[in-house]
Amino acid sequence: MDYQSFFQTELTALKDDGRYRIFAELERRAGSFPRARHHVDGDVNEVTVWCSNDYLGMGQHPSVLAAMHETLDSCGAGAGGTRNISGTTHQHVQLEAELADLHGKEAALLFTSGYVSNWAALGTLAARMPNCVVLSDALNHASMIEGIRHSRAECLRFKHNDPADLDRLLATIEPGRPKLVAFESVYSMDGDIAPIAEILDVCEKHGALSYIDEVHGVGLYGPRGGGVAEREGLMDRIDVIEGTLGKAFGVMGGYIAASAALCDFVRSFASGFIFSTALPPAIAAGACASIRHLKVSTVERTQHQERVAHVRRRLDAMGIPTLDNPSHIIPIMVGDAHKCKMISDWLLEHHGIYVQPINYPTVPMGTERLRITPSPVHTDGDIDRLVTALSEIWSQCALARRAMAA
Amino acid sequence: MDYQSFFQTELTALKDDGRYRIFAELERRAGSFPRARHHVDGDVNEVTVWCSNDYLGMGQHPSVLAAMHETLDSCGAGAGGTRNISGTTHQHVQLEAELADLHGKEAALLFTSGYVSNWAALGTLAARMPNCVVLSDALNHASMIEGIRHSRAECLRFKHNDPADLDRLLATIEPGRPKLVAFESVYSMDGDIAPIAEILDVCEKHGALSYIDEVHGVGLYGPRGGGVAEREGLMDRIDVIEGTLGKAFGVMGGYIAASAALCDFVRSFASGFIFSTALPPAIAAGACASIRHLKVSTVERTQHQERVAHVRRRLDAMGIPTLDNPSHIIPIMVGDAHKCKMISDWLLEHHGIYVQPINYPTVPMGTERLRITPSPVHTDGDIDRLVTALSEIWSQCALARRAMAA
Ligand SMILES: Cc1ncc(COP(=O)(O)O)c(C=O)c1O
Ligand SMILES: Cc1ncc(COP(=O)(O)O)c(C=O)c1O
Repeated sequence: MDYQSFFQTELTALKDDGRYRIFAELERRAGSFPRARHHVDGDVNEVTVWCSNDYLGMGQHPSVLAAMHETLDSCGAGAGGTRNISGTTHQHVQLEAELADLHGKEAALLFTSGYVSNWAALGTLAARMPNCVVLSDALNHASMIEGIRHSRAECLRFKHNDPADLDRLLATIEPGRPKLVAFESVYSMDGDIAPIAEILDVCEKHGALSYIDEVHGVGLYGPRGGGVAEREGLMDRIDVIEGTLGKAFGVMGGYIAASAALCDFVRSFASGFIFSTALPPAIAAGACASIRHLKVSTVERTQHQERVAHVRRRLDAMGIPTLDNPSHIIPIMVGDAHKCKMISDWLLEHHGIYVQPINYPTVPMGTERLRITPSPVHTDGDIDRLVTALSEIWSQCALARRAMAA
Repeated sequence: MDYQSFFQTELTALKDDGRYRIFAELERRAGSFPRARHHVDGDVNEVTVWCSNDYLGMGQHPSVLAAMHETLDSCGAGAGGTRNISGTTHQHVQLEAELADLHGKEAALLFTSGYVSNWAALGTLAARMPNCVVLSDALNHASMIEGIRHSRAECLRFKHNDPADLDRLLATIEPGRPKLVAFESVYSMDGDIAPIAEILDVCEKHGALSYIDEVHGVGLYGPRGGGVAEREGLMDRIDVIEGTLGKAFGVMGGYIAASAALCDFVRSFASGFIFSTALPPAIAAGACASIRHLKVSTVERTQHQERVAHVRRRLDAMGIPTLDNPSHIIPIMVGDAHKCKMISDWLLEHHGIYVQPINYPTVPMGTERLRITPSPVHTDGDIDRLVTALSEIWSQCALARRAMAA
């Protein structure tokens, strides 16, 4: 076995498919978001970032940065241990209380990332509840899929956002068996939103535990930023709410919020929680400050929605083909990996606009896209430049347009 | 199915076994390590931490904190995206270069934690190399075990630190099959060190890919802190070196260092790498500063070894039963979960000494222990107080002593 040439061959296949990923090297400029420095071949150029998941620009918020600076000075850099072995700090405890409160739950449990929270929580619940069967939305995120897969519990996929299909599947399962229904609120690549109430109706009818990933909802929806489920008054009907601290909250980390017993159970049995160094206290403090701010301030959410509507209007008017959805995510559909990368490269090179092409395995092949995430930090001028540049390349390359608005 | 009472019952069983974990809530005090504030029932007491894995106290090092403060100010809190979608920053690229250099490898790849690096790298390599068989040391860390398990590749466990057993097992495998040998340098609970050269001899004889977890070695051993393999001049013979940024380097994160093709392969296929928000740039910058410092400064490593030897000498003189080993970890064997917790509680309450009891599943039942990690920040006075307190409780509780030295 020649390992190196095996790796090379696999990489060459990716390149031939146009799926090989080249990461843009950036330096975001705090205080000047969405501006960033782009490093390429020794050169540094200023770019405007249009694909960040720091949806509200909280990563540059003065309260977040102040909390992090302060905690760095008082407590140092890392946690220095796993949560059990000297790694639980006051900041972790406070953050967990803040998260429990955000979601109106008895408790919350922190993980090093949203990925780990899904993987570890679903993996543990599904593996440890005897004879558990998991019902998983067909478009669930990789972190949920891997967690379920890891558990080795039986898994049935229900049709995306389809409570009737979920109902049909649940009806086939013996009544006494533990059932875990896992789905998301906002699906991050298409930007569609789950019919949460209807899914919960079905869960309750069949006595299933409900688990929602609000990674793309928390901070952004609901009066206090509790997510789509908060906006819809549904948090108390959901057993487990999972979220990230790395997107709208602008920092890093993941969590679940649920009953005290469920959190304690996951805390006690999840390998991915137990055997890993805790988040640095400064990270926990920054996330806590961000959540606290967004609990009381709605201006970021309002501006966010307004910016999204504005960009959509402008793109529609130009006939740029976006996927329609009720969320803050604007997918511009291209449908080909090479073409998508070509447009992205051109925007970067000629207009200093950075939008990463999204390709397989993040989205299905043939649905390659540019995923635009407007935020309160994008000005009218930024939007103007984006739309003009897109329109230009759409014309130059004779890309399909939608029937123009008006 | 009554989910809540199922969780409760499982938790009660843990409590009955003495295995239920209560996390100590701490605030480390930067500049005063190993001192920390301990929050308990609304009170705050000063304690001396004796079980941190911030082995060298780098979490309070001025260069580390300065790099983090600076990057927070210039780039903000979080990365704002996955590595592919706007989350690769200049700091990540620099850190990966620093890590590749540390281990004399072509490349390195960052993950959000050491846990994720093992899980994702082993999971991807073992799953993607066709018909791969993994040979895993019997005492490998949970993160390696879960990664291998996740891959669903065939896995054979070889006897702990036993190259002859590894040789015997490898001889049973068809020659053309991809073989991956996974082991650690320093085993963190017993503190023993692998016979790396002998294991590599066997790997080379059978054409197996070698993968070493140096999580408890990096920063601490070798002229530049490259780990035990650096100290023994073996880094170039190892295919994959995995490490953490959360222990001796004092911050957070994990990585692999290997050939450019292998890193690129894992980068391109590992779900746990692809689908998760990147480390905050300030974290990457702090880790980078820590590595750079420890590449040129040996005083921390020298003092560390001296402190460890000093503590060992004192404990031996008192007949406190430690597990002998050639590393920096001093396990004081108790052998019972309840007793271990009782000693730990007593040390905390009566002496302000914090040593977390280590129980199952971190160590096998019946081998419960106090795991002492002396560091350059512990003074002679700290050591004196620790040894005196331990001796006192050993006498009070008529715990078994070793034949006294001298
Ligand atoms: C739906 C969803 N869940 C979970 C995650 C993982 O969260 P994190 O980035 O905090 O690891 C992501 C994206 O990264 C996601 O899109
Ligand atoms: C041997 C070993 N590997 C990996 C890890 C995980 O590293 P991290 O704490 O960075 O997640 C640990 C401990 O936490 C460990 O002891």
